Amino acid sequence: MDNAFSSSERQAVYRAIFERRDVRSQFLPTAIPPALLARLLHAAHHAPSVGFMQPWDFIVIDAPAIKQQVKGLFDVANGDAAQLFAGEQGALYRRLKLQGIIEAPINLCITCDRQRGGPHVLGRTSILEMDLFSACLAVQNLWLAARAEGIGVGWVSILDNQKLAELLQLPPHVYPLAYLCIGYVSEFLPAPELASAGWRQRLPLTELVHANRWQQPLSDDALAAALTGFDGGVLPP
Amino acid sequence: MDNAFSSSERQAVYRAIFERRDVRSQFLPTAIPPALLARLLHAAHHAPSVGFMQPWDFIVIDAPAIKQQVKGLFDVANGDAAQLFAGEQGALYRRLKLQGIIEAPINLCITCDRQRGGPHVLGRTSILEMDLFSACLAVQNLWLAARAEGIGVGWVSILDNQKLAELLQLPPHVYPLAYLCIGYVSEFLPAPELASAGWRQRLPLTELVHANRWQQPLSDDALAAALTGFDGGVLPP
Repeated sequence: MDNAFSSSERQAVYRAIFERRDVRSQFLPTAIPPALLARLLHAAHHAPSVGFMQPWDFIVIDAPAIKQQVKGLFDVANGDAAQLFAGEQGALYRRLKLQGIIEAPINLCITCDRQRGGPHVLGRTSILEMDLFSACLAVQNLWLAARAEGIGVGWVSILDNQKLAELLQLPPHVYPLAYLCIGYVSEFLPAPELASAGWRQRLPLTELVHANRWQQPLSDDALAAALTGFDGGVLPP
Repeated sequence: MDNAFSSSERQAVYRAIFERRDVRSQFLPTAIPPALLARLLHAAHHAPSVGFMQPWDFIVIDAPAIKQQVKGLFDVANGDAAQLFAGEQGALYRRLKLQGIIEAPINLCITCDRQRGGPHVLGRTSILEMDLFSACLAVQNLWLAARAEGIGVGWVSILDNQKLAELLQLPPHVYPLAYLCIGYVSEFLPAPELASAGWRQRLPLTELVHANRWQQPLSDDALAAALTGFDGGVLPP
């Protein structure tokens, strides 16, 4: 069709999607050029948002003192979390490296201003969380642009958000949606780290697709067949 | 750096990001080839997820009866929403077309199974909403892959999610995160529709970027300068 990208452009988009990784261990200290970081922020800023609300702000963190304090928050939350996993799973949990806060040259907190656009935002009248969901879309735009730039991103979610908000001096209506570690990497791993470590494997896509209602099987045999493979290039694990 | 894509690949990724639109009005009835739809679902399925939880399911809706019922839910919610906007804003609200449920050949509900992976999910111990946020990342993967394929996507958020869940017969632990309209389009508009319609404009990125703490100005002049433009190609409105 007319509006489709060229075959090589399409492949580049899928490459970003399939080769993106959640990076924790491979960060290099190499500084990120300001123009590159700006491109990533432009990418995030061009995410869709409910009512064109653009609820995001971007806190670019490079001060070692702040990073150390965030790392302290992670250590506390991760110590608590580790208690929840027993036996072999608990032992594996403790061996996993789950963040690169200190090593990544840039940390980025993408926030969500829950009051932006006033009391009534178009499209956010039925589902109030649409602002948070919009900010997530900005995260993924940035994550994919970063992969194309050769920059790794890791989302640190083992944090007390209340304490993080205090540390970053966020006003009460601003939520610290995503705390990201960003930097050049020695490599992008061929598969997600949790899969390689044996924590959890990718689910078969065919089991996740339903027709018209929950758990109603697909009547479209061609779609069912197509779900078992990928005809647009290489599909990594 | 070694891991970066080629210049043309990078441009393709940014093109998808900048030329993606939230489509409501330009859907064509042309059927989507099953192999293409499968590629979009693979793209969504390769989103990052907390603890590799992959909380998403995909309900592919093409039954006219279901689409009509969802359109009915939209009409009710949108009637309520319109009351919230007064005067000129209310008049403009009523003129806007906010969904393409019937015209789009495929509707897709991306759900979030809040129990997948058991009671404790790695990385979802401090912030329980991380499963919802992960499913949002799947939405954006699909949205960008669709743009590359020449397929338009619109997120319909003016719906009573409880009623939508009943209609799609979701079990109580499965949340209907995103209701998407998907199809070929006559065109991708050059700018977001809400901007063209005068509802709301894009915010200046420079005002959204802070250094280390909320509203602390950037000390990096090169970054501040780079935020005012985009050196990687064309940046649409």
